[in-house]
Order: sequence, then structure tokens, then C-alpha cells
Amino acid sequence: MQTLIHNIKAIVGCHAKEVLLVKGRGMKDLPILENAWLLMEDDRILNMGTGTPPEGTFEQIDAGNGFVFPTWVDSHTHIVYAGNREGEFVDRINGLTYEEIARRGGGILNSAAKLRLASEDELIEAALNRLTNVTKTGTGAVEIKSGYGLTIDAELKMLRVARKLAQLQPLPIRTTLLGAHALPLEYKGNKSGYIQLVCEEMIPRAAEEGLADYIDIFCEEGYFDVADTERVLEAGAKWGLKPKTHVNQFNAIGGVKASVERGAISVDHLEELEDDDIDVLIGSGTIATALPLCSLFLTIPYTPARRLIAAGVPVAIATDYNPGSSPSGNMSLAVALACMKMRMNPEEAINAATINGAAALEWSDQMGSMTLGKKASFFITREMTSYAYLPYSFGDNLISRVFVNGKLVATNS
Amino acid sequence: MQTLIHNIKAIVGCHAKEVLLVKGRGMKDLPILENAWLLMEDDRILNMGTGTPPEGTFEQIDAGNGFVFPTWVDSHTHIVYAGNREGEFVDRINGLTYEEIARRGGGILNSAAKLRLASEDELIEAALNRLTNVTKTGTGAVEIKSGYGLTIDAELKMLRVARKLAQLQPLPIRTTLLGAHALPLEYKGNKSGYIQLVCEEMIPRAAEEGLADYIDIFCEEGYFDVADTERVLEAGAKWGLKPKTHVNQFNAIGGVKASVERGAISVDHLEELEDDDIDVLIGSGTIATALPLCSLFLTIPYTPARRLIAAGVPVAIATDYNPGSSPSGNMSLAVALACMKMRMNPEEAINAATINGAAALEWSDQMGSMTLGKKASFFITREMTSYAYLPYSFGDNLISRVFVNGKLVATNS
Repeated sequence: MQTLIHNIKAIVGCHAKEVLLVKGRGMKDLPILENAWLLMEDDRILNMGTGTPPEGTFEQIDAGNGFVFPTWVDSHTHIVYAGNREGEFVDRINGLTYEEIARRGGGILNSAAKLRLASEDELIEAALNRLTNVTKTGTGAVEIKSGYGLTIDAELKMLRVARKLAQLQPLPIRTTLLGAHALPLEYKGNKSGYIQLVCEEMIPRAAEEGLADYIDIFCEEGYFDVADTERVLEAGAKWGLKPKTHVNQFNAIGGVKASVERGAISVDHLEELEDDDIDVLIGSGTIATALPLCSLFLTIPYTPARRLIAAGVPVAIATDYNPGSSPSGNMSLAVALACMKMRMNPEEAINAATINGAAALEWSDQMGSMTLGKKASFFITREMTSYAYLPYSFGDNLISRVFVNGKLVATNS
Repeated sequence: MQTLIHNIKAIVGCHAKEVLLVKGRGMKDLPILENAWLLMEDDRILNMGTGTPPEGTFEQIDAGNGFVFPTWVDSHTHIVYAGNREGEFVDRINGLTYEEIARRGGGILNSAAKLRLASEDELIEAALNRLTNVTKTGTGAVEIKSGYGLTIDAELKMLRVARKLAQLQPLPIRTTLLGAHALPLEYKGNKSGYIQLVCEEMIPRAAEEGLADYIDIFCEEGYFDVADTERVLEAGAKWGLKPKTHVNQFNAIGGVKASVERGAISVDHLEELEDDDIDVLIGSGTIATALPLCSLFLTIPYTPARRLIAAGVPVAIATDYNPGSSPSGNMSLAVALACMKMRMNPEEAINAATINGAAALEWSDQMGSMTLGKKASFFITREMTSYAYLPYSFGDNLISRVFVNGKLVATNS
């Protein structure tokens, strides 16, 4: 079936097919088509152009003079979880730090305790609600991490849920095994024993069952160190799992180097960044993924995107959606914060949330830009004066309709 | 007509009728009714209770186990304006400060140039769109300032538009004359001449035509000083206009004292706050209004709410919705930021955005709480685990239905 979207003020993000990844210095390059139309066939972008649209027996959709953007690709989430943690939010308001809450049994271990008790069906229902919500703010594909199980069974349960979600709703999903997210209580004082469990049992089981696309670890003081990171990433490599890692959130301890040297697709967080880390990233092909909603929520520094972009490092933006440090999956707000707080230009922030997010999931051949032959995953906005109006009007949801793989998946009144 | 809302998880903000203003030390007091029902008659709250709802021939509304909150009262906006300023937003990303942009003819004077050219109908149409949007995020009443006219005709035009808006849509509106928002180009080098115009012509005209409820001035370095503030507030007083002032946004220069001594209903902004300012506020009855969306957008300090609350000063929260420093009217996000950034407890932030916002418009006898006899202005949320979930889930719009004066005015899918 062919569908024509007409009356488009501009189509944003019309990158050439060969631009799979917007390299750092090119991040301001956001090709647009003004006064445009878009023809899709089934799940693909068939044609685009400006001026008078082609004639034919198409289904017709009037874009109402709104903009068309490629849907956001949210390349870092923990969207499968049980229970919320607004109690810890109030604890932080009353003066406790994120680290203090973790020491009192809150934080990741709080989520782990709840997750172990939850059935797959309960986890699926809650995650489906979250996916429906993030679709309304323009997200068209997500990555989902495990990491609240911290036992073999519970980690595999999370990944199995993530795989099932991919069948139950329209958004494509990549999965990442994050067994080494925190040290479970059962291994207190025996971190090496837990790392051994992750490397020798968890990774092989997840890989054998085809549950994980990537391997991750929380490389951070008080969690896992560089040696742990090397062991886990190398164990993942044996099973074909490439790294996407949590590094430099609170401290720069060498996780960037350990990850890049092991072929990381992306290194995520980077709120604390040394020049050495940037040197390692230059030319590596590894994407630097910033998580501005987490910086907002925890009141920690924002990832220094300008330093990364100046060095030619490609930057992606994701939400980090999780119950403890970023209870929001609103990519539009993440893009606005990238502009407001990381001083990314609207063009850079849009590229970071689309084509570079897609590259951070090795999906830039299929999505992340408005390019002939790619998936028809895009959203239509309300009338706006410019595409910069989207991050400028940071508190509004300006997205009226969202299409994923050619199908209308969300409509906002 | 009587309507029964049943299946309410909890009604939030059930203050006693005599609590017109939540005094500082009582700001954590947020009475709730759990497992509740609500009966409204025409535009009023007729009855509330817990457990089994009363029987009768009411229209029935199922709250779906959501919470009921009093609608937000946004006591500080500049919602009547012409044209957006996302170009200046990009200028700031590229390194210009708000002050530098103002010196280059941007800022308030940019908006003034556009506003003078706009017809009343154009201004009304744009403002109606904004009001419809803010209703979706739970706002049930607003204050609107002039201040982009800076001539007698253009200032009166803005106020006339604000008065007409009150007739054209359901939200009650208070209006404020802010003729002294910036020095217009025509008076460059002649600030005293402009103040004279404001005091001797603009204020009398606005008052005679019944266009303004309050008088305001931007008391700030580079704009208007304390002596100007005193002149303008005293001229307003002659015409019965009480002060609501812009003070201490970038510098603490004495505007709080000048305003409080002249009976200000509220002093707004207060990002820069000296102990002397707080001393003046204690026991004055003047409300301290914080504008967290402006702090977020401009990256300036947040109003130190904890110091104010500790001193017993009542705090309100508003959006400052305007095209230059806060292009958002999302009160729910303002409440979330008050929790995240100003360390207000959810109870304090909710009170600040409802009962204290109402008090900052001298409307706390009619709105701002779920109290028998008050206007039936409230919103129903989606299912949530607690009322703290609302600010915790800061990127979502959790509001499903909004009622103002007993009428359904917004529904979110």
C-alpha cells in the first residue's frame, strides 16, 4: 500500500544513504526538504520531494503544514522494571544523596528486590504502558537493558520480557545484558565470584538463548572497576556481544578506554570526562551517548557535548529511562535539555537523537533519518515556525502523529 | 446540575475553608481524602467523602482510580505576545548571554516591536492556543501581564486582549499592567520621561478602563531601579492597583523592600536573594513567587525556596510563560522542577502551585484547594502509586481530564 503525506512545511533529517553515522564535525549538518511531500510504501520511505506532490491512487494524509522528523531512537533505557521509586525521590529532596540511598538498600538493589518478585506478565504489562507513553513523545525504537535481576534467572527473565515486548508492540527493540549493574546482596564481599557468575554462566546462557544483542557493565567507584569491566567485556566478546557500557557517571576511572579498546559501539553517561577519555574516543568509531534527563533528575553535571563535538567524536542522546535516576522516557525533553544545558545546536541535538541514536544500535541503515529505502518511522508536528521551535518550546508536546514502520502508532490531540 | 466523580484513589489539597493561604511553616500540610468521591453542583464543589458514594440521580464520572488535584493556578505569565524567539534561543546556545541579546535589540524590545504590529485578533488567536495548551497540563486560572507594548496604545491593547480572553475561554484571568518592563527605544536616555508616562498616563488610562487588576515593574539593573519602582507602585496605588513585582532576577537591588512596604501581593523571581530580603518578607503577608521554568531555560539560579520556607515565608510557583526566558506554560513541569531543583517536598510544591498561587491572585476564597463551596476546578490523573509520582514522573503528562468551574475543558488520551 502506498500513502502520501502532503502539506509538509519541511522534512527534517534527509541524510544521504551513505551517511550512516554523522561524524562529530558534521553533526550540524541537518539536510531538510521544505514545502515537501513524502510517499511511503508499506513500511518503507518510497519517495520524497518538494512542491506539487505526485498524483496517483495513494492513501492521503494531510500534515497540516507541520514538520516531519525521523522518530527518536532511544539507545539507552532500563524500561523493564517493577515498581517505582518516588520514595527515594522524596528522600533525596530531604537531603540524602543517590549514593547514601544506595547504601541503605535503595537504588538498584531496591529495584532488584522488586523485580525478582514480579512475574513476566507483570513486567510486560508495566513496560508496555511505558512504551506506549514514550511513543507519544516521538520515540520509534528503543534499547532495553537488563540489570535489575542480578541472578541468572532474573536477568534472563528481564531479557526474555524485552524480546517479547518486541513482538507485542510496534517499536523495534535491541536488548543488552547488564548483569554487572550492581553487586547483589548474596555476593556481598565476593565481587569476583559475581563477576565469575556473569562471565561463565549469565553471558553464555543469554547468548545461547539469543536474548541479548549487547553486553554492558556499570564501571563506577563502588560498583565495578576497570578490571571487572575488561573481564565482562571479554567474556561477552566470546559470545559475539559487543559492548555498550555505563562509564564516567560519577567518576572517570578508565572505563572509556577499557570499552573503546574492546570495540564498544557506545560509551554512555560521560558526565565526568577527562581529556584522556576524549583522546581515546577520537577516531575510534565509538559513539559518546549523553543522558541529559539523568543529569537533570540527579543534579549531576551534563555530559560536555561541546568538548566531544569539537574533538570530532559523534554524540548520541538517550533517556536512560529507569526508576531511580531518570524516571522519564521523553526524548523530546532530552533533546531540549541537550540544547539548553549542553549547548548543542538544534541540528546537533536532532542528529544525536535520531541518526546517531540509530548508529548506537547498529540500525542506521534502517532508521534515524528520512532517507529513501529506510523504514517509514517518523513523526508529524503541529504547526511550528522552525524546527528549532521544538526544543525551544521545551514543555509542550508538539508531536501530533507518530508512525513506526509505516503504521500510525500514536495520535496526540 | 449535579455530577458525582467516583472511584478516586485520593483527593489532594482538601484544605479547610479558613486556610486561605498556607503560611510558610505549614506548607507541608496537604490534607487528602483517600478512596473518595466528589459531588459538584454546577460550578461548585458541593460535597466530598470517602468510601461508598451517595446515591442519587447524578451524572456519573469514573475517575478510574486516579487522583484528583485542584487545578494549578499560574500566577505569573506573559502569555499575550506576538512571535516566538527561538532565534535568540539559538544565539544563547552559541554563546551570547540574555543581557547581550537584549543589548542587540533582542529580548523584550524584540517582542515589543512585533507586538506593536500585531492586531488584537492576531494576539487573541495566538494566546487562545497557548491557553488551550496550558489547560492540558492542568492549569485552571492564569495571570497575564502586559509589558510588550511599551506605548500607551500597545500596553492597553495587550490588557484589552487579556480581558477579552477571559470571555472567550473558560480559564479565569487576572491582568497586570507592566508598562515598566523595559525602556522603549523612543525614550532612550530619558528613563524618567518614560516613568512619568507610565505613572501619569498609562496607569490612569488602564485603571479608568478597568483593564488592570495589579501593577508591576521590572526592578533590575539595566531596567528600572528602586526609585522608579517606588514611583510606579505609588502611582498604581492611587488607582487601587496593588503591586506584584519582578524583583531580584539577576541582582538583589532592593526591589523586595520597596514592594513589600507598598503592600505587594507577591514579589516574583527572587533567584538572587539576600537575608535582608527575607527579613522584609517575614510576616508581611507578601507571597514569594518562584519561576523554576525560567531558571531552567536561562540557566540562572533557582529561587532558594528552602530558605524562604524555613523563614516562614509563603512560596508560590508559577511558569513565567513568555517567549524570551520561559517559553513554556507547563505548570506540572514547574512543580517537578520545584521538587528536583528547589528541594521542595511534593506537598510544598503542590501547595505552592495551587492554594498559594490562588492567594497570589487574591482568589484563594474561590479556588486553589478542594474545599466545599469553592469552584469545581480540578484535574483527574491517570492511575499513580502516590501523589509524589506526579513530580517524580517529570517528563510525562499524567493528567487525563481537566475541569474548570465544573466544566470539562481538556482530555488527554
